[in-house]
Parts: sequence; structure tokens; C-alpha cells
Amino acid sequence: MPIPAATLYPPFNILRLSHVELCVTDLARARGFYVDTLGLQVTHEDAGHIYLRAMEERGHHCVILKLAAAGSVGVLGFKLYDQPDLDKAAAWFAAQGLSVDWVERPFMGRALATRDPMGVPLEFDVQMDRLPPIHQHYALYRGVKPLRIDHFNLFSPDVDASVAFYAQMGFRVTEYTADEDTGRTWAAWMHRKGGVHDIAFTNGRGPRLHHLAFWVPTPLNIIDLLDLMATTGYVGHIERGPGRHGISNAFFLYIRDHDGHRTEVYCSDYQTVDPDLEPIRWNLKDPQRQTLWGAPAPKSWFEEGSVFDGAALRDSTLAAQPIVAP
Amino acid sequence: MPIPAATLYPPFNILRLSHVELCVTDLARARGFYVDTLGLQVTHEDAGHIYLRAMEERGHHCVILKLAAAGSVGVLGFKLYDQPDLDKAAAWFAAQGLSVDWVERPFMGRALATRDPMGVPLEFDVQMDRLPPIHQHYALYRGVKPLRIDHFNLFSPDVDASVAFYAQMGFRVTEYTADEDTGRTWAAWMHRKGGVHDIAFTNGRGPRLHHLAFWVPTPLNIIDLLDLMATTGYVGHIERGPGRHGISNAFFLYIRDHDGHRTEVYCSDYQTVDPDLEPIRWNLKDPQRQTLWGAPAPKSWFEEGSVFDGAALRDSTLAAQPIVAP
Amino acid sequence: MPIPAATLYPPFNILRLSHVELCVTDLARARGFYVDTLGLQVTHEDAGHIYLRAMEERGHHCVILKLAAAGSVGVLGFKLYDQPDLDKAAAWFAAQGLSVDWVERPFMGRALATRDPMGVPLEFDVQMDRLPPIHQHYALYRGVKPLRIDHFNLFSPDVDASVAFYAQMGFRVTEYTADEDTGRTWAAWMHRKGGVHDIAFTNGRGPRLHHLAFWVPTPLNIIDLLDLMATTGYVGHIERGPGRHGISNAFFLYIRDHDGHRTEVYCSDYQTVDPDLEPIRWNLKDPQRQTLWGAPAPKSWFEEGSVFDGAALRDSTLAAQPIVAP
Amino acid sequence: MPIPAATLYPPFNILRLSHVELCVTDLARARGFYVDTLGLQVTHEDAGHIYLRAMEERGHHCVILKLAAAGSVGVLGFKLYDQPDLDKAAAWFAAQGLSVDWVERPFMGRALATRDPMGVPLEFDVQMDRLPPIHQHYALYRGVKPLRIDHFNLFSPDVDASVAFYAQMGFRVTEYTADEDTGRTWAAWMHRKGGVHDIAFTNGRGPRLHHLAFWVPTPLNIIDLLDLMATTGYVGHIERGPGRHGISNAFFLYIRDHDGHRTEVYCSDYQTVDPDLEPIRWNLKDPQRQTLWGAPAPKSWFEEGSVFDGAALRDSTLAAQPIVAP
Repeated sequence: MPIPAATLYPPFNILRLSHVELCVTDLARARGFYVDTLGLQVTHEDAGHIYLRAMEERGHHCVILKLAAAGSVGVLGFKLYDQPDLDKAAAWFAAQGLSVDWVERPFMGRALATRDPMGVPLEFDVQMDRLPPIHQHYALYRGVKPLRIDHFNLFSPDVDASVAFYAQMGFRVTEYTADEDTGRTWAAWMHRKGGVHDIAFTNGRGPRLHHLAFWVPTPLNIIDLLDLMATTGYVGHIERGPGRHGISNAFFLYIRDHDGHRTEVYCSDYQTVDPDLEPIRWNLKDPQRQTLWGAPAPKSWFEEGSVFDGAALRDSTLAAQPIVAP
Repeated sequence: MPIPAATLYPPFNILRLSHVELCVTDLARARGFYVDTLGLQVTHEDAGHIYLRAMEERGHHCVILKLAAAGSVGVLGFKLYDQPDLDKAAAWFAAQGLSVDWVERPFMGRALATRDPMGVPLEFDVQMDRLPPIHQHYALYRGVKPLRIDHFNLFSPDVDASVAFYAQMGFRVTEYTADEDTGRTWAAWMHRKGGVHDIAFTNGRGPRLHHLAFWVPTPLNIIDLLDLMATTGYVGHIERGPGRHGISNAFFLYIRDHDGHRTEVYCSDYQTVDPDLEPIRWNLKDPQRQTLWGAPAPKSWFEEGSVFDGAALRDSTLAAQPIVAP
Repeated sequence: MPIPAATLYPPFNILRLSHVELCVTDLARARGFYVDTLGLQVTHEDAGHIYLRAMEERGHHCVILKLAAAGSVGVLGFKLYDQPDLDKAAAWFAAQGLSVDWVERPFMGRALATRDPMGVPLEFDVQMDRLPPIHQHYALYRGVKPLRIDHFNLFSPDVDASVAFYAQMGFRVTEYTADEDTGRTWAAWMHRKGGVHDIAFTNGRGPRLHHLAFWVPTPLNIIDLLDLMATTGYVGHIERGPGRHGISNAFFLYIRDHDGHRTEVYCSDYQTVDPDLEPIRWNLKDPQRQTLWGAPAPKSWFEEGSVFDGAALRDSTLAAQPIVAP
Repeated sequence: MPIPAATLYPPFNILRLSHVELCVTDLARARGFYVDTLGLQVTHEDAGHIYLRAMEERGHHCVILKLAAAGSVGVLGFKLYDQPDLDKAAAWFAAQGLSVDWVERPFMGRALATRDPMGVPLEFDVQMDRLPPIHQHYALYRGVKPLRIDHFNLFSPDVDASVAFYAQMGFRVTEYTADEDTGRTWAAWMHRKGGVHDIAFTNGRGPRLHHLAFWVPTPLNIIDLLDLMATTGYVGHIERGPGRHGISNAFFLYIRDHDGHRTEVYCSDYQTVDPDLEPIRWNLKDPQRQTLWGAPAPKSWFEEGSVFDGAALRDSTLAAQPIVAP
């Protein structure tokens, strides 16, 4: 299936990814990972939740840690341009025969809850409480100095189908991996906000969240995080990296929390606001697409991911092969 | 005058700044500065011109060096979303009583030439020749490793008027400096592409170009450029920096070419795609807005700039005071 | 006076600078500067003193903050190779007609107290309490991440005389500034430990301590310190930099504590263990010796320094001219 | 066998490692690796040799590439303090019943050739041609920006014996790995010049050179080298890293030339001039001694090395186990 061309006039305007709800089994332990180690800022805390934002974000939260019986992902949130877009989105999802629910969320205006055809729980909103800037409060910077949430990466049992669906919503492919033999797409990176991606799909049993990612200032901040984790009892939580992805050219590190949720911290990206930006095609047989420098990724990185609440898992429609990274 | 709120529905869609034509008096000398020292890539060269692009750009050029009798700026170029936007732009400028000319430019599709009310020569285009990616051709990286053109900064004799005009075109103010006593705006940073700015206006005799700017990977690349310039005969071309601006939080360096054109190389920026992003207001009396670390800028930085071809200069309508930086 | 050649066989073996006693007028305030901001580690604290070490040091302290009525410098300490060297040092100073006192210091073995011919209070020791390594305790790193004390820089009213005296003790000149007209030495950098310097002398009213210096990992740590100081009430304590010295090639920043004591944080150095290393001669008329990148230093940097307890001040024997930096 | 204490009064004064002769089978190919990629400077070239120095070195060369029929190591060179030390060294080696030959080497004064008890070919010299400084010729910096040769790392079939022999020559152990069960030493790092090591020994079939190492400015220069090698046909020459060693705390990368010679580029070190510096003991069972961040090294890194001309290979006297790194 050829990669879809950029949709010039999407049915509604998605600005960017907004937030994710991560279900964790121990809030204090998760706080040690996301706040004390990674360096996210707490914006609200109650018995069942911790709300977090990164250093340059003005929205109330980009991550919600929710106490639960098991590790899973509650929802992926996206911010729309304005209120009319929210109604257009509701109409469009209804027309696709997909669920449409208006939900109330703390610290946010009205939100539209639905699922994509794979069952991934999605939430669209326009308004979230705004907080004062802290990006110049340098005394608050900790850990890897996370600046903003950057993207979600999902396992999809049918990447071509996932890409086709999100392309209709206006997500544009910046890079992708194709199987030269079958022509099938093995992985694709799609954006709305003008970077390499807001969301990416990777071939594999799914839907599952492969990772969420934070943008950090420089590679040295990632080295600082490695040194910190390696000497504070988190060495077992370092899964892959540091390295450079051929795809996206990202300097990356992958770490895992106690419930197995994977976070990528990365820097180096490029501007993709041009609608005529040509997607970069990578060959499934080119190992440098995964790691420009050649080092292989561990088995866990290809196989493990976080399930979405209420989403049934399906195996990939593609022959079992090394899952395409990143 | 209060800073204008973000225009939600601009008359046409400007994606980002695109390119600038710099008139220089010696092409070989300018090549030494922009190519051998700064590190831009030559994409075309003829007897009268050198076309340049930065490392992550796919468009044919972001800077045109044009041989001329005197140093000046020929035009500032902006890329529009699609061809209908170009016609909407023509209609809108005509409606403002401003000139509208369709011009032919090498390596580009049809382009609309006009001027803003201050007389700044503008050019709008949709299509420019696309080139293969070179951002992973690491053997080509030189100098400061410029990744992309980031913004233009202009002296305006009436910043409030300039801001009001560009706000109508959909440029959004991210940060600005206000005179608490008069309420007048001293400087403003406005964007389209989702960063701190595509264009900024600074109070002063104008219109003149204060500087163009390139985004670079890390502060260490800027230190590398300083070391290189300081030991290859360019020490006199280092004007200001390195430092951190309070406004925009940019880590910056300002350098001058042999004709006096000023270039900023900088990194650290933040994402501004949210239409509800609150502009950050700075007080004219706060010196840290200019240099977070306190070091003053040299007199030349406040006073000198590049004239635009065919634009009459006017003094500022505001009382002479330190010009707001950056 | 020609710069003295390296003494191959000094009368006793000085390993390196060891520590400095800084008299401060408010211990809590000094703690905020040296511990919370600069990032030194407290190894002992009592009503009148705070003992500090840098991250890679195993010795008990490199800085002693001593509560006093006025800001001054109590003593400069140097570590000798072994106990016999201490006796040789005592004999040698006595032979020079200089004072020799055996003193008891907390956390140290026997120490020899004396003064150089300019009156600078010196202390020589062999043994200091050793502490467990903390250089891999990354959770302890703060501020600029100071790794080790690197050197002392002194104003001397007669640099030629100071250089001649320390050369007899085996200090080797690595770089120096000469007045081409008079042949007099304006400044000199001298080492024992194999770097650019353990001690440097700069022409000016003295003896006074111009600064002490700490070695830090990379220029980015210095930028982090600038951002931290600029946003935590210390912007007025940033005196000069960041920049690159021509002499020593150091990437530097100079900051001042509340009592005016100056600290340099710097990185980039080179190995100087070869006794046949030729000193690098700089011309007094070359501004790049001070700042490779061309930016001038502020007046305070040339004129202000810390007095030594009990040392009478003399004006320079050289005509008043810009004091040689760094 | 307990680790030997530092010898306070060695029989002669070794300043530092000086140079290595690498036999390569194709000079042009080796030039592409060491000059165009790694960034060393050519100081002399003839039909059979290329002499190289790093950016801050004043000596004529630190590496000699010698055209030969097979890849091997000709000699390891060390610089002594003065000429009398050279005669003391000759007497001492003769007294050990080891060979003593006075040899002529280009660009050097008289040199003493011998072998250690394992058969490692050694060369001691005092004088080598001195070259003008180039450390501030920033236009010359390339590749990883190598500043100086830092150390040699050797496989030894009997680490305890190697350590005992070099300790007699005044090399001091800074860190070592011990087998808690047998008390045997598995690896040791020994220095003369005041850093973590000039030479290290690692348990394994030998004697063989495991690697030579260059000191570089920052981790970002190592990342630059990785990006360059990965996109210029050298991806297969990247063997291990980037990473942080627990032992020595070095941020490292290991690369291989076309003949298999291994080079480490690294930064982060600490000062070790104190004779009372306590060696750091690591447990053979602690994987973080090898890689602080946990990633394992490839098999080749543990098993492959360069043979020394004329040195017979012996298997280790210790039970086969993972060889201790780095």
C-alpha cells in the first residue's frame, strides 16, 4: 500500500498531542521515577493521581499517573485548534461509525472521548488550565530536564490501516519503513505540530503503546540521566541507548518505569511544517534505520509494550520479522 | 496600545519565513563568511549570486547572496500553505492599498512581491525546488552546523503599527516589551511556524533588518564557531555574545559579515503552536529581558542594521531610549 | 627579565595546590553561594567554619570558609610529596630568611606556615584526612558540578620577582605575557601538577588574590550555572564571561561572592608534565591573550581582589597599564 | 596477591606514555581512519610511515603508522624525565636480566629499547622533536578532535605479575578488579602522569594490545564521531559505546581500524597526583565496573587484540571468565 500523501484539508484541526494517562500500581514509586529521576514537575496530586508537566509547557499536564490494579494506558489526548473543531471531530468520528462521548476531565474544558478503529482510546480537547511559565526557573530543573512531551509510539497489528486512518485526520507521514518485497508499510512517523512526529506506528501485536517521548535540551542531559539512574538504583530501568536513530535522526534513550511503561528521552528533530515535505522512505533491510551507529536493540524493546484499557489485542497481519524501530 | 490577541482566522495561511536576499559587495568574501565559516551549503552559484541552504532544509535556498554596489537587503520571503493562499494574499494586500506584483524567481514557482506599510519588501511563494535531504550527511557539517533559518528581526519606527499589521496576517505575539509608563510596545516577537518567532520588531530608525537567525544544535556549536572565527581572521566580526536572552530564552551569538549584515546563531526555543499561548510581557526597565546573565550589549548592536532596497527610513516615533533587544 | 627556565631539581617536591582559607562575614550567605549555587560539598561545619570539597577530591577540603569581621584570605595551601619534603621546605625557607612555623590544622597532619617575599601567607602539608570517593554519586552533583580546585591567581606588585621565587620552588612557567618594550613580565602561569597552572601572577597592587578556580566538566555546566545564578538572585554576582582566554585556552566564567572573593569556573586545559615544554609567550599588546573572542573584561576584573591577612600592599613597580588577564 | 602500594622512590622517572608504533597493511586506508576520520594531524609522511600527533601535543608524534605485511604493534614508547633517568633505566633493566639496546629513531634523541617480562616491546626516550603549538588552530580540528594520547591497555596472561613489574617502575594503581574468591587481580589501571592511567592490564591471552586511547574535549565530540563514521562507510568499525565505564568513570567509545587495532576515544578522568591516593577496588562480580549504565560489551571486545612483534602469546593463568573491562 503506497504511503498516503499529506491531506491538505483535514476534517478538523488537530494541533498536537496533548497528554497521556498512565495507570500505575504504586504512585509513590512512580513519583520517584517521573518526578525525582526524569524531572517532570507535579502540578496536582491527590490520593489517586499525580498530574505532571514538562518545563516549557503552559498546559496543566502532559502526563496523568493514575493509581490502578495493573499497569496500562488509559487514554491518549490531543489538543484541537478551537471549539468548532471539537464539534467537527465529533461529527467525523460518528460518521466513521466510531464511538463519541462527551466527558468531563479535571483541569480541562469539554473533552471528546472516542477510539480509533484499532481500539486505541483517544481524547480530544481544546481547553486545558494554563499555568505560569517556568522554563526560566532554572532552580527547578532536575533529571533529564524534560522540556515538552513530544510524541506517542504505538504497536499496530496493521500499520497500513493505522496510517490511512490518521492520515484522514491530517497527520502527515515524515518517515516510514517499507518492505520492498511486499510493499507493505512496517512503520510510519506522522505529525501535526511541525516536528518529525506526534504519533508513530510500529508493526506488532497491538494496539499497545510502545513509548511516550520527551524532548530534552541536548545529548548531555541524556548522559546526565544515565549517570543518575545508574547510581540511584535505576540501572535496571535503562533499556536501550544512548544512540542515534537513522529514522528521525533522534539522539535517544529508552527507559522503563516499574510497571513497564516505556519513555524515550530524545533530542535532535527537524522542522516539518511544509505540506510538500517528501516523506523519507527506509528499507526494512537497512539496519541503520533503527540505529544509525549499528548497535542492536534488546529483544524487550521489540516485543514489550503497554496495553490500552479496553482494547482487544490482535497479532500483526504481517509475517513475524524483527519489529521496525524506533 | 494593547498587544493584539492571536488572530484565529487569518486571511491567508503563512507557513513560515522562507528566505532572504542579501546584497553584498564581494561574493568571494561573502562565501568565506557564510559557507566556509558559518557552514551553509551552496546549492547554486553564478556570476552574480550564491544560493545557500542550511543542513536540514529541503527547499532550494534560505539565503541568496547577490552581488551589488552596496550592502542592503533585497527582500524577505515567506512560504504560504497552498496556491489558493497566494491568490488570497494578493487580494488582501490589494485591499490594503499595497502593491501587488507577480514575479518570476529562479528555483521557485510564481511569487507575489509587495511591501508592508513600513516599506519592507516582502515576497510570498508556495513552491520552491526541493532538494534531497542532507541532514544525515555528517561529513558536510561545518562551522556552527546551521540547521535551518529561524527568523528575521527588524527595526521598526512604529512597533505598535508593525505588530498590528502582521497580527492581521496571522502572526502571533509570543513575547513583547512594553513601556509601563506610556503603554507603548517597544519590541515584539511574532510567529507562524510554532516557535518563538518568524519575525520580530524592535524600536528604532527603520525599516531596517536588525538580523537574520539560524537555529543550531547546541551551545557547544556556537562556542566552536567563536573559536574558529577568533583564530581565522574573523574576530572583528564577533559582535555580541555568547549569552542568553531573557526574551525567548535563546542562547545566542551575533556576528557581522563584511557588509555589516548581522546574523544570529542560536538554540533553545519553545513550542508555540497553541493559539491560546499567553504572550510573555517584559518591562522595558528590566535589563534581564535583553541578557538574562546581565552583560550589556555593545552600542553597535542597538544602532546598526541593514537597509531594505527602496524603503525610506523614518526615525522612531518613540523617545530615544535603549533599543529593546534581542 | 627573561622568563626562568624550568628548575629540573627543586629543593623540595610540591605536588599541587591544596586548599585556601577564605574569610567571610556571613557563613549562611557564603553557604548559599559555595554550596547551593556553585555546588561544593560540605565535609565539616562548626560555628566558625565550613569545610568544602569538590566532587572528585579525596582530601578533606579544598576551601575553608571562616567567619571573620571582614572578607580576606587567610592562607594558600600546597601539598608536598612526603614528610622529608616538609623538612626540606622548612630548611629552604629558613635559608631564604623567611618565617617558618609548625602549625596544627584540623583534619591535617603537621603543617608548615610561612610567607613568600611579597608576604603571601603559605601553608605546606603532606597529610590531610582522606574521604571516600563521591565522583560517581551523581545524585550529589549540583550547580556547576565542580570537580577539583585548579589554581590560584594573584596580583603581584613585581611579577618578575614572584615568578623568580616560585621558579626556585619548582613551579614551571607554561604561558606568560611580556612587555615587548621593557622586556618585563606582566603576567605568568606556573604549574606543579601537570596542567597549565597551580598559581599565576598578574601585575597590580598586591599581594592580593585575584581568584581561585575550579575545574568543571564541560562548557555546558558553566552555562547551567549562569542560568541558575541569573534566576536565583545572583545575577549581580556574575562578573565576566562566559568566554575563552587566549592564554591557557580556558573556557571561563568569573563570579564573585558577597565578600567580593572571585571564583573562576573553567574547563579546557592541556597536559604540561614535560619539563621541556616551551612556555608560550604573549605580547602585552595582543588583546586576544585576554579574551580570544575579543570581548573586553569589566574594570572591576582588572582592579579588584582579596587582601591576604597580614600582608602589606604595595603598588606595582610597572607603569599603570591595563592589568594582564586572565 | 594484594595490589602493590605506590612506590615512593622509583629507580628512574617515567613521565608519561609517549607513542606507539602500529603496523598496518595499507597506509592510505589507515590515513583515512586516523587522519580523515579520527582527526589526528600528520607531522611526517614517507613511503613506509605516517607520523601523527594530537591537537595539544608539542612532541613530534604519538602514533607511527608503519607499512607492514600484517597488523601488529611494533613498540610502546614512554618519555623519561631527563637523560640520567635513561641511564638509570638501562641499568635497572639489565639488572632484571632484561634486554637493553640503544636505538636510533627518527625525530628523537637516543632511545632505550627493551621488553617487559611478558615480552612487550618497550622504548624509553627523553627527547623528541618539539613542534609549534596548534591547539588554538581551530580550523585544523577534525573528527573527534583528539587532544592527546592518554593510555595503553594490554591483555596480560598474568595481571598480578604485570602489575608487580610496572609498580617497581613507579606506576601507581588507581583502580583494579579483584576476584573476591581467589584474591587474584583481574585488571588494573596504573599511571605516572597524574590521570587514571598511562597503562592498564586486563586478564587474557597475551601479551596483546587491547587498545590505545585518546583524550577528547567532551562527550559531544564522541557523538560527532559516531555520526560521521556511521555515514561515511565506517559503521562496521564502531565496536562498543558510547557508554560510561564504572572503572575510571570514562565516557567512552571503542573503534577498530581496518587491521583490527582498537582505539578508545574518551573523556572524563580525575587527578591522581597524590601518592596517597587510595586505589579503588572493584568486585569481579559487579557488572557496573565495566559499564556503569548496564549495557554489555560485544564478544569481540573481550577477545580480540593486537599482537606485539616478537612477543610469544601465552594463555591466562586464570580460569576462563569474562575478561574484565575496560
